[in-house]
Amino acid sequence: MVRIKDIADRLGVSVSTVSKGLNGASDISEELRQIVLDTAVEMGYTTKSSRRMDTRRLCVFVENMDYEKIDEFGYDIILGFRQNAFRRKWHVDVIPITPAFQEEEKYDTYLLRNGYCGAFLLGLSLHDGWMKQFETTTMPTVLFDNFIPDNPNVCYIGTDSYEGIALAVNHLYTLGHKKIAFLNGSLYSMVSDQRQEAFENAMEALSLPIRNDLMARDYYVSDSAKYHVPGFLEAGATAIVCGNDLIAQGVIDECQKHGYRVPWDVSVVGFDDNTAAEAFSPALTTIRQDRNALGKCAYVILNSLIQHIAISKTLLRPTLVERESTARLWKGYGSIN
Amino acid sequence: MVRIKDIADRLGVSVSTVSKGLNGASDISEELRQIVLDTAVEMGYTTKSSRRMDTRRLCVFVENMDYEKIDEFGYDIILGFRQNAFRRKWHVDVIPITPAFQEEEKYDTYLLRNGYCGAFLLGLSLHDGWMKQFETTTMPTVLFDNFIPDNPNVCYIGTDSYEGIALAVNHLYTLGHKKIAFLNGSLYSMVSDQRQEAFENAMEALSLPIRNDLMARDYYVSDSAKYHVPGFLEAGATAIVCGNDLIAQGVIDECQKHGYRVPWDVSVVGFDDNTAAEAFSPALTTIRQDRNALGKCAYVILNSLIQHIAISKTLLRPTLVERESTARLWKGYGSIN
Repeated sequence: MVRIKDIADRLGVSVSTVSKGLNGASDISEELRQIVLDTAVEMGYTTKSSRRMDTRRLCVFVENMDYEKIDEFGYDIILGFRQNAFRRKWHVDVIPITPAFQEEEKYDTYLLRNGYCGAFLLGLSLHDGWMKQFETTTMPTVLFDNFIPDNPNVCYIGTDSYEGIALAVNHLYTLGHKKIAFLNGSLYSMVSDQRQEAFENAMEALSLPIRNDLMARDYYVSDSAKYHVPGFLEAGATAIVCGNDLIAQGVIDECQKHGYRVPWDVSVVGFDDNTAAEAFSPALTTIRQDRNALGKCAYVILNSLIQHIAISKTLLRPTLVERESTARLWKGYGSIN
Repeated sequence: MVRIKDIADRLGVSVSTVSKGLNGASDISEELRQIVLDTAVEMGYTTKSSRRMDTRRLCVFVENMDYEKIDEFGYDIILGFRQNAFRRKWHVDVIPITPAFQEEEKYDTYLLRNGYCGAFLLGLSLHDGWMKQFETTTMPTVLFDNFIPDNPNVCYIGTDSYEGIALAVNHLYTLGHKKIAFLNGSLYSMVSDQRQEAFENAMEALSLPIRNDLMARDYYVSDSAKYHVPGFLEAGATAIVCGNDLIAQGVIDECQKHGYRVPWDVSVVGFDDNTAAEAFSPALTTIRQDRNALGKCAYVILNSLIQHIAISKTLLRPTLVERESTARLWKGYGSIN
C-alpha cells in the first residue's frame, strides 16, 4: 500500500507537505496541492474514507481500448478522471466490458445495484447493446466520442475533430502541399464521420480539390495502409493525413516499401499523439488529444450532470505536434507528378 | 447586510443548519447544503473571507443584455455563475461594458490590472472590439454564444441550437403541420446562423420543403413580426417558429391583427423561455434555455480553463415547454390553403 512517505519521496517534499496537500490545508500553495493530489492518485494512494463502502461511487466502463499500461491510449484518460474524482472524495471503479456483458446486464440496473451515482464510458461502438439504453437512461452518463440526442442525463465528450483535421491540412498547405490524401478510420464510428467531413471542409476552405482517389476509409490499424497507400502514391499524393497514429505508422512503412522517403517525398500526419508516436522513424507529426485533460474534464462534466446541469456536448482543443514526418514540398518532386 | 438568520428564516430551517451548510459540515445532506449555498448567494450573503481583497477574483462582463431584475434574461445566468463560484470561495464582480469601454481598455490588461483570474462574457456581438483580442488572449475566458477558433484559453458555452430548433419543428410536425415558417433573429450573430442551419436540417430530415417565402431574418425584437408575418400567412403557413420569445410575442400579435387565431389558425413556437413567456396570451410554447444551469456550467468550465483543461465548446440541452400557442392542425383549415 502506498504511504504518505512514498508520495513525499517521489515529489522530494516533506511528509507534512503531502499531508497538508491531501487534507486541503490553506498554508500550502494551490499549485503544490494540485501536484500532491495528482501524484497521490497516480501512485494508487487511497485514504481510509475512500476505502469505506459508504463513499460516493463512480464507475468507468472500458471496451475496445487498452488502459492498464502507461503507454496505452486509455491510461491517461482514466488517470485524469480518477485524479479529479479523488479531489472531491469519490471512489472510482474501472470495469472492462464486452458486448456479451452488455447483453446480460441492463445499464441502469447494474449501476443502481452496485451503488454507482454515475458512469464514464470509453470505447463503445455504435453497435453496442447499451447504446440504445443510453437514449432513456436516468443515470448521469458521460460518453467518450459518442453522442446521444435528447437525453439530458447523457453527455458526449471528445476532442474537436474539425479543429484537429483543419490543423493538419493547414500545416501541410503551409508547407506547400496541395495533393493531400486522407486515410480515415472505420465506418460506423461517429468520430470517423466527423473527421471525414472535417477533411473535406478544410480542403474546400483552401480551395483544394476533394478527390475520391485521394480518400479512403478502413479500420483503425496500421495494416489499412497496405490497401490504400499504393493508390494514393500513384495518384500523386505528396502528403497523407491519417485517421490515427496507428494508421500513420502503417502509412510510413508502406511509403518506404515503395521507395518513397518520409518526409522528403511524402509528408505524413497522424491523429492522437500516442505515447509511441515520438519513437516512430521518422518521429510522427500528429494532432494531439490531451488525454489527461479529457479524463479530468469527463469527471467535471459527470459531476455537473449529477447536479442536474444538462450538458450535451463538451469538446477539447486539439494541438498540432510538429516532429519529423512532415516537410516542405520539394518543388522538383511536385513538378514531376 | 444579509445575516445567517435571514437565510434560515427564508428556508425555514435553524441557524445552525445554515451555518453547517455554509461551512461544509458533514452532518447535513449534500442536497440541503446545495440549497443553503444557492439561497445564500441569491440573497446576497457574503462571508468575511469573500470580502477580503486577497480572495481569488473572477469577472463577468455584460453587454446588450439586461440582468439586474429577476425577470430579465441575464439574471439567472449570472446568479448560477455566482452560486457555483461561491462554493469554491471565488469573489465575483459583474461589470457592464460598452463598445467605447472596449476601445479604451485592453482585455488582458484590464483583467490583470484588476486582479481577475478569468472572465465570463455575455452578450458581445461579432463586431465588438474585444472579439479580435480573444483570438490571442492568455486569460481563461468563457464566452456565452460566441466561438473563437484555436485559442486554448477561450471556451464557447451555450444551448444547443440544433437540438432546440429540431424539438420545435418535430413538435409542430407531430401536430400535423407541414407549412412551417421560420422568423429568425439578426444576421451577424453566431447563434442565428446555427438556428438557420438547424431549421433547414430539421425540415429536410422530415422531408418537408424548405421555402424561401417561409423564412426571414430580422432583429431579435417583436417589431420584426410586422414585416414578415403577413407574407408567411399569405404563403399558407400554419405554424411559425421564432428566433426568440420576443419575436414570438410580435408574431402572435401580428397574426391576431390579421384575424388569425393562435393556436387554432396558426401555431407559434418561441425560443428561450423568458420569464414573460408564460404570461403571453396565449401562453407561449417555447424552447427553454436553462439559464441557471448555463451560469453554473460557465463557472465549471472557467474553473477548468484555469486548471489548463482546454475546453473549446460546451453545449447544454434545450427542452420543449408545451403551453397554449401550439395546437393540432385543423384539417379543414389546412385544406383551404
